[in-house]
Amino acid sequence: MDALTDFRLGQGFLKRLETLIIEETIPYLERALHDEIGGTEKSHAVENFRLAAQMIETGKCDGAFYGMVFQDSDVAKWLEAAAYSLLHRPDDGLKERVWELVALIGKAQQKDGYLNTYFTVKAPDKRWRSLREAHELYCAGHMMEAAVALKECTGDTQLLQIVCRMADHIAEYFQGEYAAAFPGHPEVELALVRLYQCTGERKYLALASQFVDARGASDYFRLEFKRDPFKLWSGEIGNLEYWQAHLPVREQTDAVGHAVRAVYLYSAMADLAKETGDEGMKLACQTLFNSIAQRRMYLTGGIGSAANGEAFTRDYDLPNDTAYAETCAAVGLIFFARRMLELDHDGAYSDVMERALYNCAAAGMQLDGKAFFYVNPLEAVPGIAGETPAHRHVRIRRSKWFACACCPPNAARLFASLGRYAWGIEDNTVYSHLYAAGELDLTATHGAMITLTTDYPVGGTLTYRLAKAEDGRKICLAVRIPAWSLHNRILLNGEPAYHIFREGYAYLNALRNGDTVTVEIDMKPRRVYPNKNIAGDSGRIAFMRGPLVYCAEGVDNDGDVLGLSVTRGAPVEVLVSDSIGGVPKLRTAGCRTADTGQLYSSKPPQTSDCDIILIPYFAWANRGVSPMRCFLPEKG
Amino acid sequence: MDALTDFRLGQGFLKRLETLIIEETIPYLERALHDEIGGTEKSHAVENFRLAAQMIETGKCDGAFYGMVFQDSDVAKWLEAAAYSLLHRPDDGLKERVWELVALIGKAQQKDGYLNTYFTVKAPDKRWRSLREAHELYCAGHMMEAAVALKECTGDTQLLQIVCRMADHIAEYFQGEYAAAFPGHPEVELALVRLYQCTGERKYLALASQFVDARGASDYFRLEFKRDPFKLWSGEIGNLEYWQAHLPVREQTDAVGHAVRAVYLYSAMADLAKETGDEGMKLACQTLFNSIAQRRMYLTGGIGSAANGEAFTRDYDLPNDTAYAETCAAVGLIFFARRMLELDHDGAYSDVMERALYNCAAAGMQLDGKAFFYVNPLEAVPGIAGETPAHRHVRIRRSKWFACACCPPNAARLFASLGRYAWGIEDNTVYSHLYAAGELDLTATHGAMITLTTDYPVGGTLTYRLAKAEDGRKICLAVRIPAWSLHNRILLNGEPAYHIFREGYAYLNALRNGDTVTVEIDMKPRRVYPNKNIAGDSGRIAFMRGPLVYCAEGVDNDGDVLGLSVTRGAPVEVLVSDSIGGVPKLRTAGCRTADTGQLYSSKPPQTSDCDIILIPYFAWANRGVSPMRCFLPEKG
Repeated sequence: MDALTDFRLGQGFLKRLETLIIEETIPYLERALHDEIGGTEKSHAVENFRLAAQMIETGKCDGAFYGMVFQDSDVAKWLEAAAYSLLHRPDDGLKERVWELVALIGKAQQKDGYLNTYFTVKAPDKRWRSLREAHELYCAGHMMEAAVALKECTGDTQLLQIVCRMADHIAEYFQGEYAAAFPGHPEVELALVRLYQCTGERKYLALASQFVDARGASDYFRLEFKRDPFKLWSGEIGNLEYWQAHLPVREQTDAVGHAVRAVYLYSAMADLAKETGDEGMKLACQTLFNSIAQRRMYLTGGIGSAANGEAFTRDYDLPNDTAYAETCAAVGLIFFARRMLELDHDGAYSDVMERALYNCAAAGMQLDGKAFFYVNPLEAVPGIAGETPAHRHVRIRRSKWFACACCPPNAARLFASLGRYAWGIEDNTVYSHLYAAGELDLTATHGAMITLTTDYPVGGTLTYRLAKAEDGRKICLAVRIPAWSLHNRILLNGEPAYHIFREGYAYLNALRNGDTVTVEIDMKPRRVYPNKNIAGDSGRIAFMRGPLVYCAEGVDNDGDVLGLSVTRGAPVEVLVSDSIGGVPKLRTAGCRTADTGQLYSSKPPQTSDCDIILIPYFAWANRGVSPMRCFLPEKG
Repeated sequence: MDALTDFRLGQGFLKRLETLIIEETIPYLERALHDEIGGTEKSHAVENFRLAAQMIETGKCDGAFYGMVFQDSDVAKWLEAAAYSLLHRPDDGLKERVWELVALIGKAQQKDGYLNTYFTVKAPDKRWRSLREAHELYCAGHMMEAAVALKECTGDTQLLQIVCRMADHIAEYFQGEYAAAFPGHPEVELALVRLYQCTGERKYLALASQFVDARGASDYFRLEFKRDPFKLWSGEIGNLEYWQAHLPVREQTDAVGHAVRAVYLYSAMADLAKETGDEGMKLACQTLFNSIAQRRMYLTGGIGSAANGEAFTRDYDLPNDTAYAETCAAVGLIFFARRMLELDHDGAYSDVMERALYNCAAAGMQLDGKAFFYVNPLEAVPGIAGETPAHRHVRIRRSKWFACACCPPNAARLFASLGRYAWGIEDNTVYSHLYAAGELDLTATHGAMITLTTDYPVGGTLTYRLAKAEDGRKICLAVRIPAWSLHNRILLNGEPAYHIFREGYAYLNALRNGDTVTVEIDMKPRRVYPNKNIAGDSGRIAFMRGPLVYCAEGVDNDGDVLGLSVTRGAPVEVLVSDSIGGVPKLRTAGCRTADTGQLYSSKPPQTSDCDIILIPYFAWANRGVSPMRCFLPEKG
């Protein structure tokens, strides 16, 4: 199904991310979850499990639950990331601590299988009373994903047994009148599919379908609210679009509401469409994906432009400076795109997956792996970002931790499992979705091994070599050709290769042992023109090279970027000896508008020619505070 | 002091506004206040006075107070506007209804002078318990302004007697520990100065000083909150900047907080600086004015860029599409600028006054005088404006009425008293701040009459004629020369005139009876370049002609303005035969960017040359729903 366990990353951009996660972020998150990071928000997430275990054992506990109602999910996401880490880098100490934590989680589980520290410690009489707000199924889902990952990566099933008991409890509870229920924050749906794929238990698939089908079809939120108005936050149900519960899912056409919830739901829908062959569901997924990719997505793959509701808004409403573009939403978009690829091998999906991964998601983490953005604007001005009501959510420095700490472990579990996103395998065809250097060992399943050598996204040459192929085993290699790559070369053993090009992929059939496929992707820096309906971008352009969005940051440009205009048609130079985050900066020509000292002036302000230095967006805000801008006015 | 009563407007742009107010808006507002406009928010403001009178008479009443805690101020502002209307256009019916209303207000006054329907009808035990939120002094201030206007315009003092009793009650109450008090919404301060100027009672001036001096110097809001947490809206005191109470007023340097409150306060400060010769206060006024005019004001004279708090934010934070720019704030800025002119005859003040009047304030009203904008964006896109969280406050159609109906009567009282803003008189010098055609009859005070003939802002020729001047009476005429007018001609009886130019004014001394001064102002359409620090305007320019900001509206431009770019250096033509709101449209050359159908594209989108039609900003949204934009990208 995917290439998590059989792929070993080689040196390069993605390896740097993986290594950072393994060496820095996962240990850092572990310390955070154990409240060992000073001077920032407290997590208390592990302590909550200790209290719950105490409560189960003794009926009381010596402390109080602390944190968000979904605090458990931080532990689960960390466990999932730790599972991937153990796969790539065996570490007995980490392993031991993981099993200790899993044992603690087991002790925090109630007899009937119910598992949630908030409702075990703080509100035992409120179990399942507010599916809309209480995130019990969300936390359960993340624990299921962690369990599946631990099984995949270590073979151990201790957590899997725990989550299966919880899943069985859920299946039992949500029957009869509760069969109309669906959770406020989707997650359990995709997790149940994963649990089904891991265990083969069809009841988990059926339960996922039940939750997805109920959404927007039943009036469960109102029923629940009427029955027992247990409220965690809002006193009102509000706009059903926020929860993607305004219509039955197959009738939804626009991506609306809370962006993370949306893409987690759509991911489950894609999973179900694949598992059940449901064509109506598949069509809805395609329509919703297009709503995002064609009208509601930032250049960086960020989604959800409104801080209010962390939500999608309207077509083309993509303001740069007030963007929300939550890191988790970009991660979720990658999940969704990856699943769409399972439905159709179409480069439209992998292009979006790559865009979100290399830009918005990667920007969520500092280059040292120990500070994080929750919000990812495409423009930030010190003195305004974080300061005005409209910019209050925007930060110009990454944070050490958050009261709502969903993003750091989400980025961690993504960047620690890149094989799954880089490769796809269907029958004898191996898809290279992302160009991740390394070895894909398919000897067990396909009797072959594929190595990819590349320094992408620094360079654009991809060298695939088929090795260890048993006699007669013929492999088809399908290499994605990005829509943005205008000039490509595809060689087989040094000669132009016969291939079939279909929906963004070059298919090279019947490769034999020792064959070398070389693909050259167009890495010329390019100007990007936004759709004319994106009001905030009028008259402006951005720069990309390969998958990377570039931005101008003050630190490279005499402190100021608001006065910069780029010259139309000027060459864009790749600064091979001046890199950041392992990737070269760019230089182009432009001019700088002087500060006239007047707010409005009838005289054109003076301009002076200047070089403009651009850096990859993911690397901004790593060198102190300075203004940043992706879309620059074009002149001349 | 000012030229309210001695000036009669002649035909032209300003006369159109005045006539609209007299013939349409004042009657419309009267119907609204009496709840006779169907299909919109109810006012109930007059009915609240009836209930209060009943309460005073009988100790109970047959209905409930309805509306904002400051609902009384709508009645007061209407009365003030009606006073001006009676001055310009005697109307026995209106006069009779005004006196009826004044009599009703008198009956609603408590024995000790207290006057406020909310606290008389709904919360009699809460009088003066929340200066921070309850708007009692604000309502009192507006009633004082109405009373002074009625005295000025009709000579009648019935309302003046009522408000003096209230003012005396206020003076008596706010002593001892209450001498540290100051109101949440400034207004009473400037009103008390007006009351002092009208009655000569120095205690009103002293009371105004007391309130202004206490602001930010005493901790009254916290004391009040501690003593008796009577809360109307917010449960917290919040940011003291919102109330301009973060610092003693003389130490304030940046315009902050709720924009209307700010400029009402600053107006009172300027009044006090003038009346008392307080140099520290004057300096603070200048600094605050510059904070607005040089860093925190839209091109239209709109102020307060944030919807959240209806507030100033930070320097250069002037987004076009999410602008708040409340009509009342522009009106208040005009009040402030007019008062600064009393301190210094400096064109910087009159330029801002004119900018706010012809653009933001004028846009607040539909061309038919019967619908109103509260919020005045510089860009609006149907489907986004009013729809997304960040644009929820923005409307693309004017409203018939508002639950908070402060703006319509505020615009009415301004546009019905234009003489006061058009002219200034100091000793023998007559200042022409705004170019209002008409007759200024100074025979009583200066033994002379000045007539101004002009069709400004259609044309830029101003012809002043001094008539009826008694022998030996020499008048100095000081004509403002706007900073934006680059080429001017100043003639005396057809010959180049000797004059002194100082701080934006051309002084023509010793004019004699029959002299004609002709001033030609540069009305060539001009491009306006925003300061490079205004992030949302980067790469864009706007157009002005004379005092008028222009914008592109879809209805003149094939339905779309987001795709338009203007050609650098292209001529801008005045369309003398195609006007709207009495003012010609403009035409320039540009191009239209095609919709590529892609959200982001590596290929430059196709463009096609086109004419771009611009209309005066104040007239937008009068011809159905279509997109509008003031700042357009510049190309070529």
